Amino acid sequence: MELGKLSSMNSLSVGIALVGLGHVGRATCQLFEERRRRMEAILGAKIRLLWLIDRHPRNKTTKLRISSQTQVARDFGPMLKDNRVNIVVELIGGLEDARRLILEALANSKDVITANKLLLATCWEEIHQASREHNRAIYYEASVASAIPIIRSIREGLASSKIMALQGILNGTTNFILTRMIHEGLSYGEALKKAQALGLAEAKPTLDIEGIDTAHKLSILASLISGSWVAPRLAHIEGISGLNTADILFAQQHLGRTCRLLGLFRREDNGQLDFRVHPCLIPTKHPFATVHDEYNAIWLKTDRAGDLYFQGKGAGALPAANAVLSDLADAAKRLLDSRPATNAASSEQRPKVKPMDEVSSSYYLRLDAKDRPGVLAKIAQVMARAEISIAQVHQGPVRALTPKPGRATIILVTHRAKERAMRQALTRFKGLGSDVQIASRLRFEGDVR
Amino acid sequence: MELGKLSSMNSLSVGIALVGLGHVGRATCQLFEERRRRMEAILGAKIRLLWLIDRHPRNKTTKLRISSQTQVARDFGPMLKDNRVNIVVELIGGLEDARRLILEALANSKDVITANKLLLATCWEEIHQASREHNRAIYYEASVASAIPIIRSIREGLASSKIMALQGILNGTTNFILTRMIHEGLSYGEALKKAQALGLAEAKPTLDIEGIDTAHKLSILASLISGSWVAPRLAHIEGISGLNTADILFAQQHLGRTCRLLGLFRREDNGQLDFRVHPCLIPTKHPFATVHDEYNAIWLKTDRAGDLYFQGKGAGALPAANAVLSDLADAAKRLLDSRPATNAASSEQRPKVKPMDEVSSSYYLRLDAKDRPGVLAKIAQVMARAEISIAQVHQGPVRALTPKPGRATIILVTHRAKERAMRQALTRFKGLGSDVQIASRLRFEGDVR
Repeated sequence: MELGKLSSMNSLSVGIALVGLGHVGRATCQLFEERRRRMEAILGAKIRLLWLIDRHPRNKTTKLRISSQTQVARDFGPMLKDNRVNIVVELIGGLEDARRLILEALANSKDVITANKLLLATCWEEIHQASREHNRAIYYEASVASAIPIIRSIREGLASSKIMALQGILNGTTNFILTRMIHEGLSYGEALKKAQALGLAEAKPTLDIEGIDTAHKLSILASLISGSWVAPRLAHIEGISGLNTADILFAQQHLGRTCRLLGLFRREDNGQLDFRVHPCLIPTKHPFATVHDEYNAIWLKTDRAGDLYFQGKGAGALPAANAVLSDLADAAKRLLDSRPATNAASSEQRPKVKPMDEVSSSYYLRLDAKDRPGVLAKIAQVMARAEISIAQVHQGPVRALTPKPGRATIILVTHRAKERAMRQALTRFKGLGSDVQIASRLRFEGDVR
Repeated sequence: MELGKLSSMNSLSVGIALVGLGHVGRATCQLFEERRRRMEAILGAKIRLLWLIDRHPRNKTTKLRISSQTQVARDFGPMLKDNRVNIVVELIGGLEDARRLILEALANSKDVITANKLLLATCWEEIHQASREHNRAIYYEASVASAIPIIRSIREGLASSKIMALQGILNGTTNFILTRMIHEGLSYGEALKKAQALGLAEAKPTLDIEGIDTAHKLSILASLISGSWVAPRLAHIEGISGLNTADILFAQQHLGRTCRLLGLFRREDNGQLDFRVHPCLIPTKHPFATVHDEYNAIWLKTDRAGDLYFQGKGAGALPAANAVLSDLADAAKRLLDSRPATNAASSEQRPKVKPMDEVSSSYYLRLDAKDRPGVLAKIAQVMARAEISIAQVHQGPVRALTPKPGRATIILVTHRAKERAMRQALTRFKGLGSDVQIASRLRFEGDVR
């Protein structure tokens, strides 16, 4: 059927429509023009950019070389009825319009390429259901860590190896802020301002700094790996807005640990999924510790191919455009081969996410305590009653944080304990009133000695 | 034509022959049995293992579950005449037999999967010529850094982004030896023995330790990237057998640099290729510095997708088997789609490799000098006459290396200089006789401050 449609044209060709001419949309157009000949040579077919669609196309198309066969429009309705269009590239972002466009494109027998992580994470089930119903394919390499070919690696690796766990630095904004706090000693607020000045953080940065964007991307990867939708709302999510530079520098200088915001996903032996987003103290020798500024990184644990690690740019118009074009090459190849769409499997089984209370970690605690005899004993007692074993105690001034007169700073590093036990301990500390106050709490990733 | 052949069978199916039942061959069989159903479900077709071929099959097949449709044979001649075989998996290794098998398989209209880096690097042109002539495809994901999907990433990335440079830790044996020298302070010989005891180095380790294996893998990647055969013999190759632990520890402790054996490839603006293999001092904050023991890593610089970094196991039967099966899935898909083979392009242009004399690096030099006034002045003069600018001078005892009485150890770090200038300086140092002797020389990768 597809081949019939394709070859009804003079020569073999694939028709595409690009919707949304923001930064990524324009970069995609430009890169497409640069690379079109080579892509066509590899495919042995023409790729025709038939539609460019944007609500306000005027200023955005002036710098683009648009061929006479390309129609520019404000509305995607007429394009959907154009049978020459085989592939719709959705780059408008946001939720509602993008959702409508993708569902209607699928219903109109068009394959879809999207970079929309918010939409994928939120409407995974609905979009995949529609793609199966209409037997169309959906591609989204640009939605996660755009320069890293992670979607392709997972999809193709799945045929012969099983992914047991995934960890990722999936948000460039927060990684930039954290590395500036560590390297320049900036406060969280200063580092955020710097990121905003450089265009690396938005004016309203909530999605990034609260870990929600990381959770969206982790949800996409987890859903792809596990074969059923692992919705972002199932994750325990903490961001970086509460972090204090003094703690991060202490961990860096005295504990051999650096702080990163990680997305964590693991299939446990009992079938539960460990699925969470929060700052982690990782060993300074971990490859993640070399991931600076707006770079992303992903670590995969497989059953057969060992560990696999990727690092690359997570954002930027060109890496995203490059990922869109690699999807376009795949999509065109599939159409020209009239190969059936192989979308992510749908499992009826709902994922069971491990309750956060059951997750065990080593903890870093900074306590602000009354500087008098017996206080350390009280602290030790609280930990003992919660059955949390202490690995290290550091007492003394923390650089960049002098305690008030009559107060002392105490840093505890614990062995692994369940989150439930830590919550109990924190409640008991609250019972001690002003004698002991919890100033910060951070989780380690991996064991401490 | 292919589809005709395939559908002449009862149901859609692909026939394969596996030649060579060493570690990788047996692991491939086992993993294939485990994963066959899933692969078949994804492909929508049967994969039939029709032949298992090995010179001495007896002991090797006992632990394998072999179905009744599989023939076991010692010779691959009859298999080549079996029209049901679509794909030949070459895992015999070595040069001559493997070459003959691959050329005859291609001539008999079979696609080829191989893990044979030696053969690919040595006979790249001949094998690709044969694959083009017979319109067959050749796959070799397992030949380089087996757990890392690097061949696929380069092939698919090429459609929309250009790779400007590649660096890699491509040999697990030498990386194991180097990291043991650094972390345990072992001598080169002790570290080699440890690698041999663990099965990570062969009894005759020349190919690995002299950088030849790295050059083979670099040649495969460079040929794939540049579209024409970049033969290993065009590379400047130095191994690790001459390295001294004292130098490596000095660089680690005083220069913020760690030592790795790197394969380096770069397209220069003038069209020349920088193509070499030698130990490099890299910043301890470089991601390569976190690559320990037998792990491999590859860094790509692209024009459009930024930098891209991969890390994963370089060897081991299971990662290699996993890579072979990912090739098998690709090959089967192509056959079922009756898609034309898209082999590496052949360029008539012979690659021009930059002469080593023209390569510029910063250097680390350890000099063993007579401990008397004026010697440093002589050294400085030699460097000045060769127009090499000195960045750092360290004089004093190097840990683990006490100079003989009356001698002094001087370490020089230079700014960037051409290899030719360094050769001139070394010749002049030789003219100074026993006053100054060059104990070691290492190149930095990147600039020094």
